[in-house]
Order: sequence, then structure tokens, then C-alpha cells
Amino acid sequence: MKVSRRSHVPPFAVMEILAAANQRRAAGRDVLNLCAGEPSTGASEVVRARAIELLQTGDLGYTEALGVPALREAIAGHYRRWYDVEVDPGRIAVTTGSSGGFVLAFLAAFDVGDRVALARPGYPAYKNILAALGCEVVELDCGPGTRYQPTVSQLMEAYYGGGLDGVVVASPANPTGTMIEPAELAAIARWCAEHDVRLISDEIYHGIAYGTDVHQATAATYTGEGAVVVNSFSKYWAMTGWRLGWLVLPDELVRPVDALAGNVALSPPALSQHAGVAAFSEAGYAAAAANVERYATSRAALLARATELGWDPVAPADGAFYLYGNIAATGLDSRTYCARLLEEADVAITPGTDFDAVGGHEWVRLSFAASVDTVTRAVERIAAWQRTL
Amino acid sequence: MKVSRRSHVPPFAVMEILAAANQRRAAGRDVLNLCAGEPSTGASEVVRARAIELLQTGDLGYTEALGVPALREAIAGHYRRWYDVEVDPGRIAVTTGSSGGFVLAFLAAFDVGDRVALARPGYPAYKNILAALGCEVVELDCGPGTRYQPTVSQLMEAYYGGGLDGVVVASPANPTGTMIEPAELAAIARWCAEHDVRLISDEIYHGIAYGTDVHQATAATYTGEGAVVVNSFSKYWAMTGWRLGWLVLPDELVRPVDALAGNVALSPPALSQHAGVAAFSEAGYAAAAANVERYATSRAALLARATELGWDPVAPADGAFYLYGNIAATGLDSRTYCARLLEEADVAITPGTDFDAVGGHEWVRLSFAASVDTVTRAVERIAAWQRTL
Repeated sequence: MKVSRRSHVPPFAVMEILAAANQRRAAGRDVLNLCAGEPSTGASEVVRARAIELLQTGDLGYTEALGVPALREAIAGHYRRWYDVEVDPGRIAVTTGSSGGFVLAFLAAFDVGDRVALARPGYPAYKNILAALGCEVVELDCGPGTRYQPTVSQLMEAYYGGGLDGVVVASPANPTGTMIEPAELAAIARWCAEHDVRLISDEIYHGIAYGTDVHQATAATYTGEGAVVVNSFSKYWAMTGWRLGWLVLPDELVRPVDALAGNVALSPPALSQHAGVAAFSEAGYAAAAANVERYATSRAALLARATELGWDPVAPADGAFYLYGNIAATGLDSRTYCARLLEEADVAITPGTDFDAVGGHEWVRLSFAASVDTVTRAVERIAAWQRTL
Repeated sequence: MKVSRRSHVPPFAVMEILAAANQRRAAGRDVLNLCAGEPSTGASEVVRARAIELLQTGDLGYTEALGVPALREAIAGHYRRWYDVEVDPGRIAVTTGSSGGFVLAFLAAFDVGDRVALARPGYPAYKNILAALGCEVVELDCGPGTRYQPTVSQLMEAYYGGGLDGVVVASPANPTGTMIEPAELAAIARWCAEHDVRLISDEIYHGIAYGTDVHQATAATYTGEGAVVVNSFSKYWAMTGWRLGWLVLPDELVRPVDALAGNVALSPPALSQHAGVAAFSEAGYAAAAANVERYATSRAALLARATELGWDPVAPADGAFYLYGNIAATGLDSRTYCARLLEEADVAITPGTDFDAVGGHEWVRLSFAASVDTVTRAVERIAAWQRTL
């Protein structure tokens, strides 16, 4: 029987690497896994303790489609704390992870046939969700020349080329870890508002940044007219499997997102929502900050030995926990590179083809959301293995 | 800035009733709320205890997009236990509630512009999700003449009328509680298979039935070629806020749903999945069966006094926990009826307009997922109030 055309989503190459890595590990090999886009720690003690309390006493039924009021208030408090900005809790929609947030934001903002621009390389789900919802994806070629991030001039080219209804930006970005410079982001937000182009700003790696003031840097996007901010408890708060995220919405999208959410999701997971309030406690922030310190240590160890890797260029690892580097000098296609690196040196990393269908065969992504020891040993193994090529 | 056309989803009238009911309750009034489409008990002790254990020790990170293997195995065991059918766990996709399951099933099966039939009255989210995904909804007028359920002859009319790509059936259905007779359902499944029409069978109220063998009755749908079964932990297992459901997929939809799920959802909530395995323990089944006994008692009390209500006709309340009745004799539109019933008698029920945009102004839905006492008092109040009209 017929399968929809829109379900022909390309599989992720990293899934094969992960399966092979798990097999090798099961066979007793010391595999270093640097594929993961998730923190290894899990939710903080304070969030877990609150969840246990709720399981003993609480009502875990459906909640409001936009989330429980206490959590929307707590998120508004987070904007006061980090950004010194007042956000009306009524404009905050709690979502089932940022994934659920993207689906809702795209549905509310874009119709079938609308054109939406995004950076290549980038997180593949943006593109795949948009395509599944019938939107046309306009890829912006973002290499070293634009610091791996889109620019106003690229948006203008797309706009005057075939029209443009929206743009998705991420700062810090996956897979590059690179941030958009504050002035450029402000210019993008202004240009979008002036041209009726809906800006969707993925801020799920906010708070995971090194040396740059990530909070100030992107404040423009959620105060900018018409922009939608997407965020998540998965990265900074290390709550991946809890499936909890949020949107900050412009006024005109609040009712549409509410109505859509009631139909496509009913409500985000109740326990995650109620317990998620504790993520914004002092203990919750402290646990998250400790994780970021750990990433910073791993990152420093990695960058100190980056020349041994010989990847050139590498994207500026401003934030998140990724190093995205060019391995063209090895003469290997990135899928072959990653498959052989795993087989011959027991290190698992992600081929760039998952993030960039055009140039990704020359790039790989290494996640340093692992211990310093794991990262250091991985660099040694990669460097030694590359010398054998 | 532009809001998408597809986000113009009609609001649910019941939301106004609920808001008013909460206000009255807050003001100290003794409001009887019979709006809810959810069990009042919550998850069983065994599921809660397992969740607490996992919060103390477990890994709550992302899981496989199709769900953790242990839960997929447990669901396959459920099909052996209830239906005496072998279902390959590889064809089971765990989803974020049945809501997440519908989004994935519709995306995988239908493209923009595809025509999908469903019963009117019916659960409004089917229609609203399909429309948001760009599909054309073909409503089948299902009243007393067809036992409130679609028939093969209605499907044929739609098929030869403007073409048909899919059909959604629900048995027991919301809002009617009515089940499709086994022979008719088998005929629908066969007809769909023969005409390349994808059958989506909503079985979330399975196990909540009175006097009819619900397990045998609908076995045809998931063995039928190409059919997709949608199910949920929300109703029988009373785990609404846990956002956990599943699909049983035909072979050709497994890879598409896997790929789509990885992009639109990443994975269902991890804690719900791991703890959900315990729902299939003897204690889990026993707790669920006790809930159904409670609904049966409330239903019996309700039906014993149904003539006092004077609703005519009422849909056969074969399963689920709803009574759907025609209130045309009162001379009131159902929205007015429900608003006044709340204001004048402090009983909250749902206007039929939420389930049927054409004839729903003559119908109301009463949920008996409440205590016998609440249901009995509600009937008394409604009957007394109707006499004042």
C-alpha cells in the first residue's frame, strides 16, 4: 500500500555508527563514543527529588495545552534572571521537547509551499520537519566565509531570488558550536521584521558557551517583532529523555499554537512539567552550571591538542559541545572516515553528511559532552590512526 | 506578521465550560464535572513505584525513536494476552501519546492533498491534525441510521465520489462510546485493503467495554493488510499525563515512521516508557480492570435513570465512558444548553458541537468516568433542571 512521499526522510548515518559502536562495546572493546548530542549526566538531583515527590502524591493528568502556569511563570523568571527581560508568561508555550516546539512553530507560522531558509550545515530535523509539513527548504551555504552562520545578505539573496517566508537560526549551532555575532543577529532580526519573514531562533544551547556572553548576545531575537524563540530542557538542564521544551511566541501566534497544541499533542508530559519547575531553583542552576564547567574543561583539553588532529578548518567552538572539522586532507569521505575510525581505533564520531548533504563528506563532528579523560584519549587515538592512513 | 492558514483550528467549546466550571468551583459552588475525557484515578501503584525506582537509579536519556525494546516486547505480549495474536515487536512504534501516534501515522501514510474519511460525530483532533498536515477531510454522516459508525457503503460513496486515500475509525468511539460491529469492521478492513485505502484504527478505548467482547471484535483491524492501529496508555491504564501510546504498523510503514519519529519527536518520554512496562504486569492489569469495573457501575447507575433525562436518541454506550444524547426536545442549542446547565444547576457536560460541526447543536456528551455518586447526583440535577425549561 502507498507510503507518503513526505516520509522519505534520509536516514542518519550516525545511526549506523552507533549500532556498530554498540556491537563493538558488547564484544568487549573499549569504544570511545563521541557521537552523542546529549549530556551524560542526566537531570539534577533537585529535579529528580521533586519528581519522586510528585509520583507519591501528585495529579499526573493532562495539563493545559500550553503547559502548567507554574512552569510558564518559572520560565518567565528565567528570562528576568538571565536576560533582564520581562516576558509575559502568557506568551510562553511549554512543549514536548524542542522537537514538539518546532512542529508547533512551523505549523503556526508556515503554510504548505512556504519557503523557509536555514544554514547548511545544520541540525537535520529542521529541514526534515519542514519538508514533512509541506514547506520548501532554502539552504544557505554557510562555511568559513560567513563564520558558519547565515547573514542578512544571504537572506536578501533568497528573498529576492524566489521569495522567503521564514528563516531558522541557531546560536550556538549544531553541528558547529558557532555563535552568530550579536550585531549580525540583531541585523537579521530587524531585516526579518521589516520584510515579514518569520524568524525562528533555536536557543537550546544557550547557557553552554565559553568566553562569550551568550545571554546578551541573542536577546535581540526574542524581543524582535514576530520572532519565535525555541528552547529546551535537554541541553543546559541535561533533561533529554524528559521531553520538555518551550517557545516564546509573538502575540499573534499564541492562540494558534494553543489550538494546534491541543490537537497534535494534548499537553506536554505532566511529570516533566511539574518537576521541571525545580530546574529553575538555585540547586537546579548550580547543577547545570557544574555541567557546563565540565564541558569547558573537556573543550580546553580538546582545543589544546587540536593541532594534533590536523582538521582544517574547524568551526569556532563558541558554545554547545561540538567540534566540527574538515578532514579533506585525509583523502577520505567522512562516512568512510568515521566507519574506519571506529573499526580501526574504536572512536565513534559523526560524519558531516548528517548535517550537510552537499559538503558534509569533508567534515566530521566530535562531541565533547564526555569526560576530559575520554576526550583526551580520543584525540590521541584519532591522531595516531590518522598517521596510519 | 502572517499566521498560517492551517493554524486556524476551531477552539473547543468545552474549554469555555471548563473555565466557567473552575470559576464556580473556586467561588465555593458544588460543581459536578462530567466533561473530562480522562480517568480520575491516575497511573497504578505498580507503575508509579517503578517510576520512582528509575528516578533514583535509571538513565533517563533519549531512547530509540521507536521506543525502548522492553516496552515494544511488552506491548507484543499484550496482543498475545488479549487478542491471541502474534505481533512482531519490530512493527510496534511507541509514541508520545496517541496524539504523537496520529501525527506519525498520518505523515507516513498521507501526502498533502490526500483525502481521508472519518465519522461525524468524532474526536475533533483527527480532523484538525489531518487539516494541519494538508490533507482533505471527508466527513461521513454517522447517526442512528448507521449506529453512529461508518459503513462500507459510505466509504464506497466517498471513494467513487472524489477518491479516497485513507479512513480513520474508532471503536469504541469518542464521543458516542459506540462500537463497530465485528462483521462491519472486518468488511471495512477488507474493502480498504482491496482498494488501497489506508485504514487507521483508533483502539484507545479497548478494554473499556460493557458486555461485548471488545478484544475479539476488532482483531481484524490490525491483522488486516496495510492497517495501522493506534493505541494509548491514557484510557485503559489511566496514564493521561504520561504521554505514552503506540502504533502497530504494516511492514512498509516501519522505516518511514522510524525516520519521521526521529525528526519530529526524537523519542517518547523515557521515564514513561521504562515505567510503562509495569502496566503490563499482573498488578497493572488488575488496577486497570478495577477502574473499568468502576466505570461499569457508574454506567449502570446512569442508564438505569436515563429515561429521566429524556435524551432521545442516545448512542449505544457500548464502551469508553461517554453517553452521547440528543437534547433537541429541550428546544435549546447544545452550547446554550451546556452553558445554562452549568449556570443554573452546576453540572458541566460537553456540547456536541465539539464533535460535530453540522448536527452537534442538538447533542451533548456526558462522561461517566466519575464516581457513581457524582453521576447519580448529576442525573438528578439535569432532570430537575430540564423540567424548569
